[in-house]
Amino acid sequence: MTDARPIAIFDSGIGGLTVLAALRRRLPAERFVYLGDTARLPYGTKSAETVVRYAVRAAGFLAGHDAKLLVVACNTVSASALPALEEAMEVPVVGVVAPGARTALAVTHGRVGVIGTESTVASGAYGRALRALDPEIDVVARACPLFVPLAEEGWWDHPVTREVAALYLEPFARGRVDTLILGCTHYPLLRPAIAAAVGDDVRLVDSAEAVAAEVEALVARRELAGSGGGVRLLVTDAAARIDRIARLILPDTAVNLELVDLPD
Amino acid sequence: MTDARPIAIFDSGIGGLTVLAALRRRLPAERFVYLGDTARLPYGTKSAETVVRYAVRAAGFLAGHDAKLLVVACNTVSASALPALEEAMEVPVVGVVAPGARTALAVTHGRVGVIGTESTVASGAYGRALRALDPEIDVVARACPLFVPLAEEGWWDHPVTREVAALYLEPFARGRVDTLILGCTHYPLLRPAIAAAVGDDVRLVDSAEAVAAEVEALVARRELAGSGGGVRLLVTDAAARIDRIARLILPDTAVNLELVDLPD
Repeated sequence: MTDARPIAIFDSGIGGLTVLAALRRRLPAERFVYLGDTARLPYGTKSAETVVRYAVRAAGFLAGHDAKLLVVACNTVSASALPALEEAMEVPVVGVVAPGARTALAVTHGRVGVIGTESTVASGAYGRALRALDPEIDVVARACPLFVPLAEEGWWDHPVTREVAALYLEPFARGRVDTLILGCTHYPLLRPAIAAAVGDDVRLVDSAEAVAAEVEALVARRELAGSGGGVRLLVTDAAARIDRIARLILPDTAVNLELVDLPD
Repeated sequence: MTDARPIAIFDSGIGGLTVLAALRRRLPAERFVYLGDTARLPYGTKSAETVVRYAVRAAGFLAGHDAKLLVVACNTVSASALPALEEAMEVPVVGVVAPGARTALAVTHGRVGVIGTESTVASGAYGRALRALDPEIDVVARACPLFVPLAEEGWWDHPVTREVAALYLEPFARGRVDTLILGCTHYPLLRPAIAAAVGDDVRLVDSAEAVAAEVEALVARRELAGSGGGVRLLVTDAAARIDRIARLILPDTAVNLELVDLPD
């Protein structure tokens, strides 16, 4: 028995392609339909109300693609809109916050740092997820607003990025955390600069890998395994820069972005 | 005779508050209604099609406020959507590109640089406006995508900003231009860092001042002068950061952002 319906992936933009790449490595036989709401990105600087409104609209659109489950690749959406999405969708919804928190707890010795967008950090979602599993856990969070623009500029391990990382990540350096959650899909692209700023002894938790492992387990448990493979990449704005960044993130994939109109 | 209707100012976000500030200095007796489409910002990384769609929607909303003229404070919108806005509005529409180009030509000795968002630079609008007035003019343009996030981070004259400016503005340094148009409402906030990168002998043209002078002349010519003064600040998303940045840009104004819903 196979289930040929696609797995839907939703992101505010194209940073979630890091999650798509992780999913494809684990589940090469699945079909994926990816929606990046590039006409309204970024979500990470906007209020929770706006994020929920945009996310519910996008989920409705993806439900029309007959998805068998919805992966919310965007940390900002996962942090602010997961209950609303679970209510709006009939299929399982998997966000990145819970898998990231579980992975962090599996490796930490007790002091976890979280970095993300302003919206994700303001939501406190990672702290709640971590403390729900371990009330004793010590959590320090900080927003890093320039990391997404730096990643999108292609300055992944640029001297400027290293300097910004050193400034932002000062609260996590010199042993003040032993584990750091990269709470934004873009941040794994900056991994060398982040690692240099916090030191090699801090474990970096990439939510993309964590959510891919969770989805793999869910597909097996619910007998949702597909066959055939394939990817559709849908975006709501197709500026040339989106195409350029998508090719940076997915160097091994034939990138063909389809422009779609999200009913407003 | 006075015309009590407000002057409408439209921007993708709150960078256009630099234009509002310049307008208020010249026209203290006017009422202003400012709309920042903060739920969809930034426009500067999006395609011209999306920018036109959003701008026409916002202009329709402002027409409902009985504005006597519309100032488009956003360079990206001025560069891509001015004809569409002129068609959609019954009142005069003033963009920032033409006033900026005229001011640059008044001071240049022949070599003009233009910096702006990716969308503004890709549109080529400043080059067209400059060459329409002086076909012999030498124009060099470059997008500076990190300048808006740096300005919004509050790093106006920060060492990182100076370093990024030196990298971006290298094509304009050492006498290669004599005049540089700051083709984005945020850029005047970074003026010291920009001036340091290009050298003191390069004249910096601030579109905010140029458009304010143009609007002042238009109000006089068309006998649209108002009385009373006052400002309403409308935004489509009211994240805490928007409020914070608005207060940074308007330190002398009582900032009270009103959240409005732009009909989609």
